[in-house]
Amino acid sequence: MKKIFFTPGPSELFFTVEEHIKEGIRNNIYSISHRSNEFKIIYEECVSRLKDLLSIPNNYNVGFLSSTNEIWERIIQNLILEDSGHCVNGSFSKKFHDFALLNKINAKSYSFDMKEYIVDDIPNTHELLALTLNETSTGIMCSREKISEIRSKIKNSIIALDCVSGIPSIPFNINDVDTFYFSVQKCFGLPSGLGVWVYNEKCLEKHLKIKEKKITGTYHSLQRIHEMSLKYQTPETPNVLGIYVFSKVLKDMMNIGIDNIVRDTNYKSSLLYNTINNHSDLDSFIKNKEIQSKTVIVANCKNESDMYINAMKERGFILGKGYGSGKNQIRIANFPTHSKEVFELLCDELTLIK
Amino acid sequence: MKKIFFTPGPSELFFTVEEHIKEGIRNNIYSISHRSNEFKIIYEECVSRLKDLLSIPNNYNVGFLSSTNEIWERIIQNLILEDSGHCVNGSFSKKFHDFALLNKINAKSYSFDMKEYIVDDIPNTHELLALTLNETSTGIMCSREKISEIRSKIKNSIIALDCVSGIPSIPFNINDVDTFYFSVQKCFGLPSGLGVWVYNEKCLEKHLKIKEKKITGTYHSLQRIHEMSLKYQTPETPNVLGIYVFSKVLKDMMNIGIDNIVRDTNYKSSLLYNTINNHSDLDSFIKNKEIQSKTVIVANCKNESDMYINAMKERGFILGKGYGSGKNQIRIANFPTHSKEVFELLCDELTLIK
Repeated sequence: MKKIFFTPGPSELFFTVEEHIKEGIRNNIYSISHRSNEFKIIYEECVSRLKDLLSIPNNYNVGFLSSTNEIWERIIQNLILEDSGHCVNGSFSKKFHDFALLNKINAKSYSFDMKEYIVDDIPNTHELLALTLNETSTGIMCSREKISEIRSKIKNSIIALDCVSGIPSIPFNINDVDTFYFSVQKCFGLPSGLGVWVYNEKCLEKHLKIKEKKITGTYHSLQRIHEMSLKYQTPETPNVLGIYVFSKVLKDMMNIGIDNIVRDTNYKSSLLYNTINNHSDLDSFIKNKEIQSKTVIVANCKNESDMYINAMKERGFILGKGYGSGKNQIRIANFPTHSKEVFELLCDELTLIK
Repeated sequence: MKKIFFTPGPSELFFTVEEHIKEGIRNNIYSISHRSNEFKIIYEECVSRLKDLLSIPNNYNVGFLSSTNEIWERIIQNLILEDSGHCVNGSFSKKFHDFALLNKINAKSYSFDMKEYIVDDIPNTHELLALTLNETSTGIMCSREKISEIRSKIKNSIIALDCVSGIPSIPFNINDVDTFYFSVQKCFGLPSGLGVWVYNEKCLEKHLKIKEKKITGTYHSLQRIHEMSLKYQTPETPNVLGIYVFSKVLKDMMNIGIDNIVRDTNYKSSLLYNTINNHSDLDSFIKNKEIQSKTVIVANCKNESDMYINAMKERGFILGKGYGSGKNQIRIANFPTHSKEVFELLCDELTLIK
C-alpha cells in the first residue's frame, strides 16, 4: 500500500522531488565540482528563487549549512559575544538556549509554556533575541502581528527567528527580524541534510565587531560563508543534491504561488482542528486559536497514542508521535505537498478511529 | 554523449548509486523519522558494514558528520586543548593547520612540500599529530609502512589520519592511528554532504579530560555524537539519504572484495602513470614513486592545462584541474567506480591529445 507521511519532518517528499532527484542523476549534477561554473549557476538560481518566493529584501543574504542544529551553533558563535535571550515554548527553542549555555553565553530563557509570547515579559537589552515561528515539538505558532509587535519594542537586539516547519506556509514580515533559518525536510519536502541561514547587514556588522574577541568558527564563520556566497559557492563541499533539488522545488512553488500555498495551508489546518475537536478521543493540545500551529497540529489522545498511530498506519497514513518521552500525543504535519484531497481523506479516516 | 567524471571529488557516482537512490525513494527512506527503528537499523547496518569492509577493530567508533571541513573543526574542538602538530604536504593538510590556528591552538606546521614525511622531523610532544593518507591537492600518498614508522616513534600523541580520497583504495594499519576520517564523494562515489569520523577510546578519554576546560561544541561534541551513536542515531536530523546509500555501497564493495578494489586501484594507477610518463606533453608532478598517489594522479602540462581538459571533455572524459590558482596541471581520479576498461580507454585517449 502507498504510504503518505504526515510526520513533522522528515516528511512526505514534495511531489516533484522524485523526478528532480532523477533528473539530477541523468544530468550528472552529483558529479560536478562544487567549484565549477555549473555549480555556481545552481547556487545563484537557488538563492534567487528563494528570495523571489519569500520576497526577501535585498539587504539579506543566504548561506547553506547542514542542519538547524548547526545554524543555532553558528548564530551563537558569530552573533553573540556575551548575552542572549530565548523565548521558549517547546523543546527546540529550549535546545537553542541550551546550546548558548554550552557556549558560555549568559543566555536567559523566557518560558511561555503553552502561552502566547507576552511582549512585556521580553526585555530590550539582549545582544540577540531568539524567537520561534513554529515550535515543531508543541505545535505553537507565532503570528506575524506578534513578531511585528516584538520588533517595535526590541529595537537594538538582533532578532533571530527559527522558521523550521514554518517557511513558506506561515507568513511573517521579514523586515521584523535580522536573521531567520530553516531546514528543508519540513515544508519543502526534501530529503534531510540541508539548513538555510538568511541574515542581514546588521548580523554581518555584529559579526565583524566581535570576531576578534572570540572564536567564531572556521569554514562556517559568518564572514567565510558570506565571502564564498558572493562567489555563489560554499566554503566546504556542500550537499549539492540538496541545493539542486531545493532550487527545483522553489521554482515549482513559485509556479503554484505563495498565496495559494498559504491559503491551502489554512484550509487544511482548519479541517484538521475541526476533526480533532469533534473527535471523542482527541483534543487539541494548544487551545488558544491565535497560536495553534497551521503546519504541525498536536492532539492529546484519550487512549495510548500508539493505538491511533498504528490504526492510521494500517490505512497508509503515517502520523508523528508526541515529541519527547511520555507524551500521549499525535503530531500531524500539514505541509505544501499534502493536497487538500489527501487531507480530507486523512480527516475522514481519523474520524473513524476510536 | 555519456560523460565519465575523473574529477577528484565530487566524482563519478559509484555504478550502483543511481539504483540505490531510486530504491530509497520507492521505500520512503527519505521520509522516515531519524528517531524511528527503521532509521536505527539503517545506521547500525551502515556502521557494521564499514567496520567489516575496512576491518576496523572493536575499540573504534563511527560518527556521521556533514563534511571533512566539519570533522577538522570537531577534532580541534574536542581533542586538542593547547597544541597540535600538522604534517603539511598540500592545501588540505595546510587548511587543517589553519583551522587549528583559528581556534587559538598553538599549532605547529611541519612542511614536507613534495617530499615523503621524514620521521625524524616530527616531534613526539604534541597532543595531536595530523597526517594525511592522500593529499587530494598534490597527489601525495603516505604508505602504510611510513604511518607505522611514525606510530612507533609517536607514542603519546593522538594520531589523526586524513583519509579523504584514500579510503578504501589505499590500505593502512588502523591500529597505527587513533582517529581517521573521510567524506563519501571521493572513493565511495556518493553525492557529497556526508563526512565519516572514526575514533578510538583514547580520543574519548582525551575529550572527557578536556571538556570542562574549553568549549567543545554542542550537538556535535564528541561526547554527544558518541552517546547518540550508541543508540544508532545522530544528535541532529542527518543526511539520511547519504547514510542509506553509503550503507548500500559498502555492501556492494564487500561483494567485490577489498583486495580486488586495492589490486585494481594499483593496476589502473600504474597504467595512468605510464601513460603520463610516456606522453610528450605530460609529466608526473610527484616524481618519487613511493609517494605517488594511487587515487589522485597529478600531471604537469606542457601547454595550458585547459587545452587537455577541453579536448578530453569532447571525448566524454571529465578531468580535474590543478588545485589552486595558476597551477598548470591536470588531476585525474582513480576511484573504485572507474573500471579497468574505462581506465584503459582514458589512457588511450589521453595519449592522442597533444
